[in-house]
Amino acid sequence: MKKILVIGAGRSTFSLIAYLKEHAEKENWEITIADFVLALAEEKATGSERCTAAQLDVANESDRKELIQNHDLVVSMLPAHMHVNVAKDCVAFKKHMVTASYISDEMEALNEEAKQAGVVMINEIGVDPGIDHLSAMSVLDTIKAQGGKMLLFESFTGGLIAPESDNNPWNYKFTWNPRNVVLAGSGGAVKFKQEGNYKYIPYHQLFRRTEFMEIEGYGKFEGYANRDSLKYRAVYGLESIPTIYRGTLRKPGFCRAWDTFVKLGMTDDSYKLENSEKMTYREFTNTFLAYNPHDSVELKLAHYLNIPQDTDLLDKLKWLGIFDDKVVGIKEATPAQVLQHILEQKWSLEEGDKDMIVMHHIFGYELNGQKKMIESSMVTLGKSKEETAMAQTVGLPVAIAARHILNGNITTPGVQIPISKEIYKPMLAELAEYGIRFNEKEVSFNGY
Amino acid sequence: MKKILVIGAGRSTFSLIAYLKEHAEKENWEITIADFVLALAEEKATGSERCTAAQLDVANESDRKELIQNHDLVVSMLPAHMHVNVAKDCVAFKKHMVTASYISDEMEALNEEAKQAGVVMINEIGVDPGIDHLSAMSVLDTIKAQGGKMLLFESFTGGLIAPESDNNPWNYKFTWNPRNVVLAGSGGAVKFKQEGNYKYIPYHQLFRRTEFMEIEGYGKFEGYANRDSLKYRAVYGLESIPTIYRGTLRKPGFCRAWDTFVKLGMTDDSYKLENSEKMTYREFTNTFLAYNPHDSVELKLAHYLNIPQDTDLLDKLKWLGIFDDKVVGIKEATPAQVLQHILEQKWSLEEGDKDMIVMHHIFGYELNGQKKMIESSMVTLGKSKEETAMAQTVGLPVAIAARHILNGNITTPGVQIPISKEIYKPMLAELAEYGIRFNEKEVSFNGY
Repeated sequence: MKKILVIGAGRSTFSLIAYLKEHAEKENWEITIADFVLALAEEKATGSERCTAAQLDVANESDRKELIQNHDLVVSMLPAHMHVNVAKDCVAFKKHMVTASYISDEMEALNEEAKQAGVVMINEIGVDPGIDHLSAMSVLDTIKAQGGKMLLFESFTGGLIAPESDNNPWNYKFTWNPRNVVLAGSGGAVKFKQEGNYKYIPYHQLFRRTEFMEIEGYGKFEGYANRDSLKYRAVYGLESIPTIYRGTLRKPGFCRAWDTFVKLGMTDDSYKLENSEKMTYREFTNTFLAYNPHDSVELKLAHYLNIPQDTDLLDKLKWLGIFDDKVVGIKEATPAQVLQHILEQKWSLEEGDKDMIVMHHIFGYELNGQKKMIESSMVTLGKSKEETAMAQTVGLPVAIAARHILNGNITTPGVQIPISKEIYKPMLAELAEYGIRFNEKEVSFNGY
Repeated sequence: MKKILVIGAGRSTFSLIAYLKEHAEKENWEITIADFVLALAEEKATGSERCTAAQLDVANESDRKELIQNHDLVVSMLPAHMHVNVAKDCVAFKKHMVTASYISDEMEALNEEAKQAGVVMINEIGVDPGIDHLSAMSVLDTIKAQGGKMLLFESFTGGLIAPESDNNPWNYKFTWNPRNVVLAGSGGAVKFKQEGNYKYIPYHQLFRRTEFMEIEGYGKFEGYANRDSLKYRAVYGLESIPTIYRGTLRKPGFCRAWDTFVKLGMTDDSYKLENSEKMTYREFTNTFLAYNPHDSVELKLAHYLNIPQDTDLLDKLKWLGIFDDKVVGIKEATPAQVLQHILEQKWSLEEGDKDMIVMHHIFGYELNGQKKMIESSMVTLGKSKEETAMAQTVGLPVAIAARHILNGNITTPGVQIPISKEIYKPMLAELAEYGIRFNEKEVSFNGY
């Protein structure tokens, strides 16, 4: 009998826990679901005799240690910055660990100890990071095995609304943390490499430098660049690749319209607006425009940002309500907080709405003197309010990895990300059984 | 006999030291010029028997204390962050102090002690801050005394090139610290208030939100907003004024062209460019543009930033050399450092070039039911390589304040800025004798 501890029972854990319950009998598992909020853990633990709930404050060292000590493998679904104490305990008590988060410097620092303790610690095994690693490495290794030389690697992921629930002019709703969406790309310049040239995009131009792509059965998408694409060269063994670009997917037209908010300064989270509580949405918009008592806020905005009358851009903005007389009602809010509040009135999921995760990789390479290109795409749709595309794509890889570790199929110890064949091969096969399937096709090379 | 210690003998001290020497005999002063570089202090100390040079490392506590203890008044012309230890010694040894820098929090914290010690510590008495305070308060107090109600206060200062030396398409050269010019306005959003409305401008729009004004005898200027105009409400006793705006002056067309660098991301100082040393100016420019091997860098830039062919903007950019094949030659440079390097090739002062300081205030107010407006302008021209407009306008107020303190005309103790009549009245009168004179005139009210 193996004992699994899941710490954190939030909405991204639905498919994870469903998988663990489904396999518990056959694999002879005992599962403990622990959360700071016991009711949340209890709700997730129902329906399986092999599943029990526990209350856990991870800041409580003795409780945390006791619980970890009593299990064979820990799945930490805590916010990324809270993993590290759990990880230290796992190393100390020689328990394996799985997380869906980026490896922090503190986590990385445990690598040697973890190796010596023989503990497998897989991180970045959700969707992005996670399924992107698995699917990219699978194709990259195949190209390498054939003797191909990589010329280009582009990779895009988007958390979007499913086509059946797509009923607004932005083709977008908040399917995940709205704050992250509002602040996406803010901060330093974006870095990538194209045909051997380093390229930098300042935040205020990011949403005007998009790429377009078509995904079979789902139409056109646009992608804007993620912060630092360059670091993936080392991760994927592509040190000398001339073109590398990672981005986020939206439906076409989103970025051009979102750029309005960036250009106005509405996504700024660094200062508080005076009098934000009593301000109307319209006054909020006007606060970023020049003073003129005779001109309308609409016209001032259109003129300032050079938006023609005959596009749907102003309609998108009007639909959101940024010209409305509704009161913000939030004290000492930053521009980004007010914008998020306005967006949440329109972009929140309605009853029955389904989400969608889209991933799209482009691999350009040279083989036997010929330039070739492979596109690999994956679309996962939400099935229900709980079984969202996000919960499936984050939770299933975590759960499958846990199973393979407990069964001894994944044995390499240390703090790691899922880029080895030992990991990605069985995982991609099993994810496909759950409908998370990549559609790979050769296309004509369209690099330079 | 009174003893004055000047710490720092950089190029902004020429007129300051000239004034002190000029008055030394009559006022019975002994002057010590101290600098980390003795030769610099010696050079400034020559030509007056009442002037001696000293070497001083202000980080050397015992040397610093000994020197300060032996004088009656200390003028600190050190960089702003280095004043505080000098200030603490001045309080401890009951010596008066004058600086041209903004009051830091650490400096402000000495106020009570300074008051108790009976020490006068005047800060912000250079040009901006300094002459702006004196000249603004003079008009503000006059309007107040008449019973006027302030409606609008706008204040602009610019360090520019004198008309006789103005021979480039930007009508601009570096007359002061180039790095500050390159980074001007970067960081957080600009804040001001117009007709009762708070207004915020993100950095990337700052140079497109300019105001124009005419200064008699010197033609048109444009002003862009300084970071935080709101804090001047408290400083000038204008808590309920509906419009307050402080800005920086340039000749028309500068800001529209400078905006190009901001929009491209060339003023970013937060990350290092890969391979900056071997990069050409042209490659530097291209690194911010989309990849395309067939289009020229010039056309890509014009298209990206929507610059029409039939304006002088591209000519301004070409003249600067940003499309040239010259090599940057600086290791691990940020974009801002590379841009500064390129600009320094073209914007540096030539032999015989003179600088110019321009200050322009606009006061709108209501008096007896009538709306009125006063403009107050000052232009100071450089006289020689040493006696620059900057050295005159920074140094003379510092020197005059020092004289008034030693003569007992300025006696109010504590850490302060020059906004009281006791200070500004005699100072403005004496500055006028040195040609730093404000031209005040009533104009027709042009607010809303």
